[in-house]
Formats: sequence, structure tokens, C-alpha cells
Amino acid sequence: MAKKNIGKDFNIYPMPVVIVGSVVDGKPNFMTAAWVTKLNSDPPLVGVSLGNKQHTAKGIRQNGEFGISFPSVDQAVLADYCGLVHGYDENKAEHVEIFAGALEFAPMVWECPLSMECKLTQTVELPHDHFFIGEVTSVYASEAILSEGSVDAAKLRPFTLTMPGNTYWALGERIGEAWSIGKVLLKS
Amino acid sequence: MAKKNIGKDFNIYPMPVVIVGSVVDGKPNFMTAAWVTKLNSDPPLVGVSLGNKQHTAKGIRQNGEFGISFPSVDQAVLADYCGLVHGYDENKAEHVEIFAGALEFAPMVWECPLSMECKLTQTVELPHDHFFIGEVTSVYASEAILSEGSVDAAKLRPFTLTMPGNTYWALGERIGEAWSIGKVLLKS
Repeated sequence: MAKKNIGKDFNIYPMPVVIVGSVVDGKPNFMTAAWVTKLNSDPPLVGVSLGNKQHTAKGIRQNGEFGISFPSVDQAVLADYCGLVHGYDENKAEHVEIFAGALEFAPMVWECPLSMECKLTQTVELPHDHFFIGEVTSVYASEAILSEGSVDAAKLRPFTLTMPGNTYWALGERIGEAWSIGKVLLKS
Repeated sequence: MAKKNIGKDFNIYPMPVVIVGSVVDGKPNFMTAAWVTKLNSDPPLVGVSLGNKQHTAKGIRQNGEFGISFPSVDQAVLADYCGLVHGYDENKAEHVEIFAGALEFAPMVWECPLSMECKLTQTVELPHDHFFIGEVTSVYASEAILSEGSVDAAKLRPFTLTMPGNTYWALGERIGEAWSIGKVLLKS
């Protein structure tokens, strides 16, 4: 099996899909993003990279707060829509039932079964994008996705994105348990 | 449907799974990570957050280079193993066929069908973790996962992680096409 150098453009396999909300010039706006990761557990820090000219990015810079909502497969059309149009062209909030927690400028999507509100702690300015680092101050979940008080991924039914090909995928077969199936290779 | 405030601990749904490689005190080491994201397209920047006391993190700081390999479901046991043990306790490289590209200190995993080598451009120091930002200088793929020269996710067969529950999932059903299925909500 040979390896081929295919250049330096890359994607992450697979990417999560979230809807980021902020308040831009006094109005809530939402955009779909896939460049998002957890960064630190204590305090709980999340990072999301958005084009620095995006409307949602402008709102995060204005107010230092943002919301992140996790769509389930049932919200795939809504999530895709929020990634298709710009907030300065179309009022995306019309299609969303907006949901506020304790923060004033962290709009979340009620239709999504899992959301969190974040306070901006740091912005890393990259050549094209701004990577916003936020501390998660509260997580909100629909009762229907909880098992014993914690998020149950099988009930949440998130989806994932791969590129090129631009495909959304549901979760499939359970491959195994993390921090467990690798024990067969341990020496002791 | 009520929303419940479940605190501020959070996870991303779902998370990608990668194996990060670096050279620590002259020896290659690998660790599995799920806190990884693309950050910028041009130049191609990737970010990965690792505990700042991790052996692999030490190697990235020492040499300013690292490799990222994407396991397919066939490498799930190997990937899990690389996340179970510390490089200062056990020589994980014994279980890996190491693969080098153009960079000297960016070891990659031959068994993984997709890998990339990265030059560190910036380190964001967080309370517990170091978030390493790297420019991807080359991507290496097995011919078997390519369709018309590009990575084909259905051939790559990546897997994903959700927590709590610590479950690895294969990709499942195709939900739809990104930048397409949301068009039904467009005004014009």
C-alpha cells in the first residue's frame, strides 16, 4: 500500500456540526460551523473558527458572548440553511425559535436538543479566520436526550460532516468502548 | 419540551479521533486526541489541544513539528491503545509502523490511511492544556481511500467519539448533502 502526497489542503474526518449564535448590531444571528473543538476541561473552554468577515463573528466581537447549539439529524435542514446564507443578506433568525439562558448576547436554537452559552475569553486572529475561545457558563439539554442526567449521544442523534463530497452522516455502528478496546495491546 | 440546565461541563458531539505524533527527547511518540479542528484554509491551519504535561506535547514544544494521522475503523484498537497509556510509561511506537514525510519531527502512523505533517506556528497556553496551531505542509493518503485524487470519506471509514459513554461510532446513514438540503428554506 503506497502513500500519495495529495498536497496541503486538508479536512478533519469527520467534523461535528454546530450552530453558532451571536447578537449583531442588536439582532440575533446564527451560522453553522464545523471548525469547533473542546480545548480545556477546567475551566470548560470551547473554540470555534469563523471567517473574520462573517456576520456572526462580528457579533461575537461586539458583545463577547456567543451560543453554540448542537442540531440532531432532525435539524439537519435548518442547520444547513444557517450555513447557506449570510446574516447580512437574510434574517436567519426568522426560521429559528430563539432561546436565551443567563447571558444576554448568547442566542441559542430552541429546536436543537443541546445548547450552551459561552463568554469569550480570547480571540486568536488567523490570516482569514478568527478563532474564538469561550468559557462555557451553562449547558442546556432537552430532557429527552438525557440518561441519568447526562447527555446520551444515542438519544441526541448528532450528525457529522465530511468534505469533499459535502456529506452529512448520522452516527452508525458502535465500534467499541473508548479507553477500553486498546487494552489488548497493553504490556501489563 | 423543557430545557434543563445541566451545568457547564460539556462535550462536542461527535468528536473526530486522530493520532498525534511528535519526537520527544529524540524518540517518536504518539497519542490519541479528539480535541482537534481545522482553523483556516489558506494557509491550511489545524489546531489540537493536548494536556500540557503530555509527553507528545513536550515533543511538539521541543521541535515545533507534529504529525496527525486519521485512523479508520480498522485502526480503532491501535488508536484506543495510543490514548490509554503515557509515552513516559510505555514505548507506544513499538506498536506503530512509523512513517515520515518531508519534516524531520512529524512522525505519522503508516497503518492509518490518511496523515499530515504540520509545522507549529503558534501555541495558545490554556489553564491545563496547550492548544497547538500548525500549518499543514503535506497530506499523505493511501491510494485505496482516494476517488479522483481526493479523499473519499466512505473509503476512509473514519470513526468518531462521544462522551460520556466513551463510545466510538462508525459513520452511518447519509443524511443529506451540505450546502444543499437547506435550500428549501431560502426565500429566493
